[in-house]
Amino acid sequence: METRRQAALCKEAAIHAMTASAAVRARALELMAEALAAGASEIAAANEADLRDARDAGLAAPLLKRLAYGPEKIELSISGIRSLLGLPDPVGKVLSARLLDDGLVLRQVACPIGLVAMIFESRPDALAQMAALAAKSGCAAMLKGGSEAARTNRVLSSLLAGAGLRAGLPEHWLACLETRAQVAELLELDDSVDLVVPRGSKEFVRSIMSGSRIPVLGHSDGVCHVYLHEDAPAAMAAALAVDSKAQYPAACNAAEVLLVHARFPDRDFAAVLGALQAAGVRLELCPRSRAAAAPALDPNLISPKDDEDWSVEYLDLRMAVRVVDSLPAAIAHINRYGSRHTDAIVTGSREAARAFMAGVDSSSVYWNASTRFADGYRYGLGAELGIATGKLHARGPVGVEGLMTYKWELEGSGQVVADYASGAKRFVHRDIAIEGRAEDAEQG
Amino acid sequence: METRRQAALCKEAAIHAMTASAAVRARALELMAEALAAGASEIAAANEADLRDARDAGLAAPLLKRLAYGPEKIELSISGIRSLLGLPDPVGKVLSARLLDDGLVLRQVACPIGLVAMIFESRPDALAQMAALAAKSGCAAMLKGGSEAARTNRVLSSLLAGAGLRAGLPEHWLACLETRAQVAELLELDDSVDLVVPRGSKEFVRSIMSGSRIPVLGHSDGVCHVYLHEDAPAAMAAALAVDSKAQYPAACNAAEVLLVHARFPDRDFAAVLGALQAAGVRLELCPRSRAAAAPALDPNLISPKDDEDWSVEYLDLRMAVRVVDSLPAAIAHINRYGSRHTDAIVTGSREAARAFMAGVDSSSVYWNASTRFADGYRYGLGAELGIATGKLHARGPVGVEGLMTYKWELEGSGQVVADYASGAKRFVHRDIAIEGRAEDAEQG
Repeated sequence: METRRQAALCKEAAIHAMTASAAVRARALELMAEALAAGASEIAAANEADLRDARDAGLAAPLLKRLAYGPEKIELSISGIRSLLGLPDPVGKVLSARLLDDGLVLRQVACPIGLVAMIFESRPDALAQMAALAAKSGCAAMLKGGSEAARTNRVLSSLLAGAGLRAGLPEHWLACLETRAQVAELLELDDSVDLVVPRGSKEFVRSIMSGSRIPVLGHSDGVCHVYLHEDAPAAMAAALAVDSKAQYPAACNAAEVLLVHARFPDRDFAAVLGALQAAGVRLELCPRSRAAAAPALDPNLISPKDDEDWSVEYLDLRMAVRVVDSLPAAIAHINRYGSRHTDAIVTGSREAARAFMAGVDSSSVYWNASTRFADGYRYGLGAELGIATGKLHARGPVGVEGLMTYKWELEGSGQVVADYASGAKRFVHRDIAIEGRAEDAEQG
Repeated sequence: METRRQAALCKEAAIHAMTASAAVRARALELMAEALAAGASEIAAANEADLRDARDAGLAAPLLKRLAYGPEKIELSISGIRSLLGLPDPVGKVLSARLLDDGLVLRQVACPIGLVAMIFESRPDALAQMAALAAKSGCAAMLKGGSEAARTNRVLSSLLAGAGLRAGLPEHWLACLETRAQVAELLELDDSVDLVVPRGSKEFVRSIMSGSRIPVLGHSDGVCHVYLHEDAPAAMAAALAVDSKAQYPAACNAAEVLLVHARFPDRDFAAVLGALQAAGVRLELCPRSRAAAAPALDPNLISPKDDEDWSVEYLDLRMAVRVVDSLPAAIAHINRYGSRHTDAIVTGSREAARAFMAGVDSSSVYWNASTRFADGYRYGLGAELGIATGKLHARGPVGVEGLMTYKWELEGSGQVVADYASGAKRFVHRDIAIEGRAEDAEQG
């Protein structure tokens, strides 16, 4: 089907999915979980075929690992869908309520955002997760997975779409695109698509972001920092630097740069860098950090850093180290070279921590904790749609609320503005307690 | 100054303004109000000169009226700034808080969005209002008013910028652009500008929206509907139709189309249309509404509407009328031809009202109230930044919260992710009561 036509059908479905009851959406998730269980062998067979082709094509081992979607990963997808079932219903939640005048009540009510395009590389588990988030939130979705996973995605999306349909979601609530050309077309349809959610490598995400006028929820870069303030406790500093960098260096929330206050003691500085080396981290040291700490370090895991390119995302066991003269200098460095993802300060000073957290213009700002905590599951969001480093809508790790917007509902009894313009009536403007869901609230 | 250079300076100012204390921001508003009072005659003289040129250039009377900024309007600006002083401080408000584990607390905290470009036609009062909203929210702003008001805007922005500076806001927190070429350049600087807020005619807003990759908060069209359900009480239907259309027809929240259920009684239908005509409204009737109601109407205020162009924004005493067969048909019409601004149903049925409010994909959806209520002041927002019909960030009438975003603040005591990955520790994920502001919360 032509992409524009398909998007129009999906947009129509989004309009209807907006009004799907909580029961229908819950039933959809149940049937989707059941469909994955019942179709596990069919999915696994398709995935085997995709894997065979990928191996023949010489795909690298890490990519093959991401592509693999066998019984264990299918089980994880099923439990992910079931855990979404347990989250509160996001639709119809009253966010604020205000009495404008007698019998004139204004409510700000959460509602689905509409049609979402979800575009990601390889991993078929992302497809299952995204489809489940769409069903939970009452959105329609157009999904495009990696072409290496084409067979797997086809089986998977057909099972999931069918399950939603049987539960009462509208036809075309879930569509699967197969080619890059379709994605390019889709990214132009800003009259139909309300939001784009890309997941994949930074080059991939950047290409999506620059290719569309539709709002994109995501992030391309993860240049995260750990800043050791002058009073940072040495042991905590070492533990947080090592965890932030080395616990899983390929993640976007792994730290890339260690900033160290000039008055942080040299002995402690050397101990922190020694701990990083012991964890296998190769250090790129600015001239001042070389002078302060290099003598005590393994020379094989050091290289000098004399350039000013502080925005490198290593995604590897490498870390840049820079001495700064002050807390404001650390903040200025992060705001200049960082990617607004996640940045941490290590200090015993509440005042320094507050200045850091207020002054660093990033989506997550930490005091005495590893940058690796920046993650939807660790934040307790229940499910992660992605991590957003933009400043509008949803920011940082984003759960199902990333697929929600709100509308203003005004309930009156025939009020006209002319009465307020003439002075015959006056607004009351009194905030009222939030009674719960829109449909319940009005019973009272 | 070159626009790019100026934007870089303003971006730097935005970073510093983010951390301005509540006291500094309040003092800025006080001094801005005082500066307008002290500079009133200087402003009025500049405005007189602008008005003289505009008259010589043959500017139309309504535009001259918008351009005029004499003592009374200056007084209104001053009281607008003073009323902003009374609103709660939006910065640092804790939106949610969650205990992740012992001694590991996650807070979602409201913070300023950064550098905002505010671009508007003629009205100098908009400049004062926008500058005040920026000061209140801790944002920096680059303003561009209409070129007819160049002298007025220059005096005004210099007085306001100076007042903020004396209160302790950073240099360059408020800058004023003077040419269209500068605006065009500014709209390309998506690395510096976080948000664009346009105010003016729909052609003006549309040109801004299509010319930038920076997020735009606003709306171009206001095609609002009043739908009379089959059971709509005739007197209420007439009052709401008349107020929605005729109370101030040039406003974006004025209704343009009246949809009427086919079973709404012909006699009542004729009465509603008669009331509209009595208010001076010229009706454009679809064939079915002509058949139902035309015989009872003034033929001089009727014209036939036989085309399918239902997205016309008259902004005038003209209204299109269409008969629809059902509530779903009314919803479908609005979602197809409307502009996601404000749409109202008139009915005695709670069930019909709920279906309408859930199914209409607009930023404001009303039950038994005039569409003219869609306005920041009437909503009790204290001040209006604008009305947004997009679905991301802020929607509908938007107050100072349109200039806010949030960040995640994590406060720990040395926690590392490795302990949770190994199973040595487990997340608690317990929502905790919101204690107030970020800086207070941590004292406890």
